[in-house]
Amino acid sequence: MKIVLIHSGGMDSTTLLYWLRNNGNEVKALGIFYGQRHATELDMAAALCEEIDVPFDIADLGALQTLLAGSSLTSPEIEVPEGHYEDESMKATVVPNRNMIMLSVAIGHAISLGYSNVGYAAHAGDHAIYPDCRPAFAQAMAEVAGVCSYEPVTLHRPFIDMSKAQVVEMGVKLKVPYEKTWSCYKGEDVHCGKCGTCVERIEAFQLAVVKDPTVYASEII
Amino acid sequence: MKIVLIHSGGMDSTTLLYWLRNNGNEVKALGIFYGQRHATELDMAAALCEEIDVPFDIADLGALQTLLAGSSLTSPEIEVPEGHYEDESMKATVVPNRNMIMLSVAIGHAISLGYSNVGYAAHAGDHAIYPDCRPAFAQAMAEVAGVCSYEPVTLHRPFIDMSKAQVVEMGVKLKVPYEKTWSCYKGEDVHCGKCGTCVERIEAFQLAVVKDPTVYASEII
Repeated sequence: MKIVLIHSGGMDSTTLLYWLRNNGNEVKALGIFYGQRHATELDMAAALCEEIDVPFDIADLGALQTLLAGSSLTSPEIEVPEGHYEDESMKATVVPNRNMIMLSVAIGHAISLGYSNVGYAAHAGDHAIYPDCRPAFAQAMAEVAGVCSYEPVTLHRPFIDMSKAQVVEMGVKLKVPYEKTWSCYKGEDVHCGKCGTCVERIEAFQLAVVKDPTVYASEII
Repeated sequence: MKIVLIHSGGMDSTTLLYWLRNNGNEVKALGIFYGQRHATELDMAAALCEEIDVPFDIADLGALQTLLAGSSLTSPEIEVPEGHYEDESMKATVVPNRNMIMLSVAIGHAISLGYSNVGYAAHAGDHAIYPDCRPAFAQAMAEVAGVCSYEPVTLHRPFIDMSKAQVVEMGVKLKVPYEKTWSCYKGEDVHCGKCGTCVERIEAFQLAVVKDPTVYASEII
């Protein structure tokens, strides 16, 4: 099938990119810039896509930054919390309605291309903190994608019931170069190793019993 | 209630703005720039909001123009069709997934403000050509808005079963200054009087038996 993939440059969407290609699909990758301080992820996504010859575009929503204020990912004055993804403090990393906005743009781009499929890499580990990663949200978005245009658009979220460790296990089989992916919310030179998404990244490699190729600023246990 | 209103500067959303204020609500108006050639509508919206002391912001999605290509409203090389809104030719004015994108941004803005309501002025006359103005779409969007964040966001679309003529009848009672609203898709100095939305505007005033204050480039019957 022909599919627009929401591609952040992180581990999950990069794995989904490799999986979709491995299954013979024609993928257009779409990164979304929403003012995130870790826009490094999009540079990594662009570089990797060029390397493996996948078209990659960026939807620039940077102008929305003030309208969507209130998240540590986009507001420089709010600190990125350290700790585990399931901690209450991680609510500071929620960007208001981010996933609906990203999906709506990706669906619009698919319709513009004449494609009827959109993929994204939400997985089971995201559910605790992020309402817009939960199955109820995914199901409701699938419904609306079915009626938003003349022809239905189908949303594909094959990792929705998988843990991030399971995503890594799949990625290793697909030879995903995880050293060329980016997670850290702080967006500095190397991964900090302490923010929620770094902690999750580290944990995923450990649980999958896969060597973690990432360089972290702080030593990990 | 406190509500974010998607406000295009057209007749319908301006009427909804007056109706919401008349009912004692606190309204933040939000215009969306998506590269439309008739961005005049947003200038009109800004001017009127300033006059009546309503906060008005613009969400600038202009960078999405090429990703959402294929509509005469955003692609200079595609001509704006003339004729009636229900004509097949009007499909050229569909901007891929425009309403889902606009709603998702407005919902995100509402969440950012701590508001739990979003209003928009879709009405019954829009259904024929635009899939994303139909009740099935509105219903599905209402569902997804209910689960996208920690607290549900409620979508208000009070005109969904009204014709545009009925919207005008209501607006006249609310003293909406329709001469300060904009419809024409061509976005020239005055309304063209021939494109789909001009034809609809003219028809709405005629059916409501209300004097049309609009200046048109071409004589109307």
